[in-house]
Amino acid sequence: MNSTLTPLTFLARSAQVYRDRVAVVDGGRRFTYAEMEARCHRLASALRALGATAGDRIAVLAPNTPMALEVHWGVPLMGGVLVMLNYRLQAPELAWIVNHCGAKVLLADPQYRDMMEEVRGDMPLVEHIISDHEAFLETGSAPLPDPHQPNEDDLFTINYTSGTTGFPKGVMFTHRGAYLNALGEGLEHGLTNETIYLWTLPLFHCNGWCFPWAVTAVGGTHVLLRQVDGQRIEELIEGEAVTHLCGAPVVINTIAQHFATRGKSLPRFLKMVTAGAPPSPAVIRAASEIGADVAHVYGLTETYGPMTICAWRAEWNSGTLEQRAVWKARQGVGYVIAGTDVAVFDPDMRSVPADGATLGEVCMRGNNVMLGYYNNPAATAEAFRGGWFHSGDLAVLHPDGYIELRDRAKDIVISGGENISSIEVEKAIMDHPAVLEAAVVAAPDAKWGEVPAAFVGLKPGMSVTAEELAAFCRERIAHFKCPKRIEFGPLPKTATGKTRKNELRERLWQGHEKRIH
Amino acid sequence: MNSTLTPLTFLARSAQVYRDRVAVVDGGRRFTYAEMEARCHRLASALRALGATAGDRIAVLAPNTPMALEVHWGVPLMGGVLVMLNYRLQAPELAWIVNHCGAKVLLADPQYRDMMEEVRGDMPLVEHIISDHEAFLETGSAPLPDPHQPNEDDLFTINYTSGTTGFPKGVMFTHRGAYLNALGEGLEHGLTNETIYLWTLPLFHCNGWCFPWAVTAVGGTHVLLRQVDGQRIEELIEGEAVTHLCGAPVVINTIAQHFATRGKSLPRFLKMVTAGAPPSPAVIRAASEIGADVAHVYGLTETYGPMTICAWRAEWNSGTLEQRAVWKARQGVGYVIAGTDVAVFDPDMRSVPADGATLGEVCMRGNNVMLGYYNNPAATAEAFRGGWFHSGDLAVLHPDGYIELRDRAKDIVISGGENISSIEVEKAIMDHPAVLEAAVVAAPDAKWGEVPAAFVGLKPGMSVTAEELAAFCRERIAHFKCPKRIEFGPLPKTATGKTRKNELRERLWQGHEKRIH
Repeated sequence: MNSTLTPLTFLARSAQVYRDRVAVVDGGRRFTYAEMEARCHRLASALRALGATAGDRIAVLAPNTPMALEVHWGVPLMGGVLVMLNYRLQAPELAWIVNHCGAKVLLADPQYRDMMEEVRGDMPLVEHIISDHEAFLETGSAPLPDPHQPNEDDLFTINYTSGTTGFPKGVMFTHRGAYLNALGEGLEHGLTNETIYLWTLPLFHCNGWCFPWAVTAVGGTHVLLRQVDGQRIEELIEGEAVTHLCGAPVVINTIAQHFATRGKSLPRFLKMVTAGAPPSPAVIRAASEIGADVAHVYGLTETYGPMTICAWRAEWNSGTLEQRAVWKARQGVGYVIAGTDVAVFDPDMRSVPADGATLGEVCMRGNNVMLGYYNNPAATAEAFRGGWFHSGDLAVLHPDGYIELRDRAKDIVISGGENISSIEVEKAIMDHPAVLEAAVVAAPDAKWGEVPAAFVGLKPGMSVTAEELAAFCRERIAHFKCPKRIEFGPLPKTATGKTRKNELRERLWQGHEKRIH
Repeated sequence: MNSTLTPLTFLARSAQVYRDRVAVVDGGRRFTYAEMEARCHRLASALRALGATAGDRIAVLAPNTPMALEVHWGVPLMGGVLVMLNYRLQAPELAWIVNHCGAKVLLADPQYRDMMEEVRGDMPLVEHIISDHEAFLETGSAPLPDPHQPNEDDLFTINYTSGTTGFPKGVMFTHRGAYLNALGEGLEHGLTNETIYLWTLPLFHCNGWCFPWAVTAVGGTHVLLRQVDGQRIEELIEGEAVTHLCGAPVVINTIAQHFATRGKSLPRFLKMVTAGAPPSPAVIRAASEIGADVAHVYGLTETYGPMTICAWRAEWNSGTLEQRAVWKARQGVGYVIAGTDVAVFDPDMRSVPADGATLGEVCMRGNNVMLGYYNNPAATAEAFRGGWFHSGDLAVLHPDGYIELRDRAKDIVISGGENISSIEVEKAIMDHPAVLEAAVVAAPDAKWGEVPAAFVGLKPGMSVTAEELAAFCRERIAHFKCPKRIEFGPLPKTATGKTRKNELRERLWQGHEKRIH
């Protein structure tokens, strides 16, 4: 007897069976599950009162506030499609995304209000920009008289990713996919009604890897955090008895270093889930020394966030730290809910041998994989050629069935957990009148893992300094995307005239730890 | 991007990512996941070689052997529908079920071979009775060239339950339902790749509450056990490092008493999941004294086994043993995957108030609930009146959202976790020529929780002794269903002539602990 697979049921259940338990901690404010549900219903009601109807895209720009969490139910409860925006982007980039998804309503945290008002003229479809969340909730009522009843295959959220091309692509999640992935996170990380989850990961990031729904499903507690700050994180871990958090290795390291330099250990068990790059031995050592457990997962926005996990094996506990770091650095095995839908394929889409040596492309399919790119059938078809999603990541398959990435999708720079399309950065550089050609690749960085580095060939007789070019870029793209190193000179080319990016990368990574992720 | 929800993927994944890990322990034999998969493929292949095709029902009669586990994949891999039989039934009862489901193939453990051959003439559709499992596997090959590709809503297994009427009803599970329920068990009980699961629950019992699939999904280890024996269980818990097991409270108590009388504690954490009746304070005390954690769940065969759990709250830990027992005796809240699809309804199917006092009937719907009764549209329609499955169990809803059963479906006796239809027992008694009328109700029993007790009115001038009547029943129905107490005399009646079973029950339960489950 089927019922619809949708994360909407998670909040409804927790509001029913855990009415009086704390759902949300936001500084001094606490909401029970009953209150959280009422707020989400009021939000849905308020959106309807604005004129929003089922199928409308609702864009959201906010740090990890109650609003950023509540939209994960408030929007779908009235049938809307949630579009979380990356607050690290510049206003023109945000306007591009808002236009592409066709949002009529933009919910913007007050700190972004002015910035978005400035580009309002570039967003002709936007009818409302709402920035006072509490006042907006007051315009709605709870319970919502007739919550939207979705089909499980309906479009649920869109997450824009820079992907491997210069223009963002809107990754479409369905109710069913989000439901199953939330269960998957719960199962892989042992979430229970005693889970206290600290929001070190941005909620806009791939819908927080589905953790808004996963933590709510089990009746755990969301502890909100607006920015990664060691002191504040320490206070919350100790004061709220945090059990789980997620973040890029740089976040894990920040927390571990903060505790270590104060000679402190964690007050109790804490699981830190990390992705974006494999945790280095130093990170694993630092985390284990303060008493934390690090889980290494891997995925893309297109796979609703994590899809594989380096499932730990008891027999590995006896290894040295270095051995354990080598094992932990593997991307591992498909989630239980991923089944056998993670593969490493040769160019003919045949599985590579499980020899730990033969490179192939990581391909995925199934319930862990997006519906497609919003209004972009060409990119969708390209991504799903042969019936599998092509990650662009190259990996080996070990004899024990674990995958390990050996080279990243070649044109992506991952800086502090954020994807940066090198092509997009190149485009910004190329806009400068003195530039002839440009190649952007990842350079190693002690703090961010990677930063973009640019190799630039100038037009004959023209000149520009690195400082001038960097400033030029900062006017066009988000600061974190701008090249942190710029070198001038002719680019190395292949026989067919393509830039040899591998050669540039090798130049930058020489003497550094082998680049595996 | 949808993929089919089916437990078939669980074994395929574990055979891929946990190839060399131990999947099954059966006495001195151990099978890795690669071996388990190969055996299941050989089984499917062998069934095909017999002529079995997709849609065929395959009946299985066995204690907890490798065969009883392997059929949970071997049968669906060739598209068959698995029908596990209760080995506590008598041959004529089993023949009735085999005929009702129309099985062409019966896989019977050697110990039941002769018994089933004796009724073979009554099972005209059965073409093959296979009792040498290892020899049968040899007739198949692995890997299976073209495994059956089910749709997720397809019929997967049938479990016959005595229900509330005299004839067994075949509860139909789908691939989707079994998949989701297995994930649900994993999530509620924290199953991981380190889970060592001891099979104290019969595998025939509602497909072992979906644990064959749940334990395999996470890559845990199945430790098989043919019968509940304290000494053997102790050896396995200690020798195999068991982490989880399931059973009726009588099983939990057997284990706890066994350890306690030897002055032993458990060597490590052990979660014991119990259902069928709420664990009594004595059971909870005994289990906690040896270091075990008891989880109380509730459900029916129609809900794929457990659908609610008395989700423990940290704030209850400070209660006295008696308080904790009162809390633990609640059936609790719907599983995460049950969402809000568990309700307590008044006769007009409106939710009762959450006052801990108003009685209503527990009703369920959704992915946790069966497709219907096999070839029994009338019983299906009756069970699903108003769009919800009617459990027949009466409960209250507490203010905190937890349900608590106050009276069981009135005609069912639950003995050692097994359902016994009082109507079926009454029919057997009524077959005796001296009997005028009979009423069977549950009597309290220190070991089994409940046993059937019969109140019998004789025909004028006729006589029969209790011993003769008991022997008469044992020739007709399973021994465990036969009345353990028989009293003669006229039955109390209502004004309209119906037997007042409540009065009989009160007579039996006077002075006993209040009957709550």
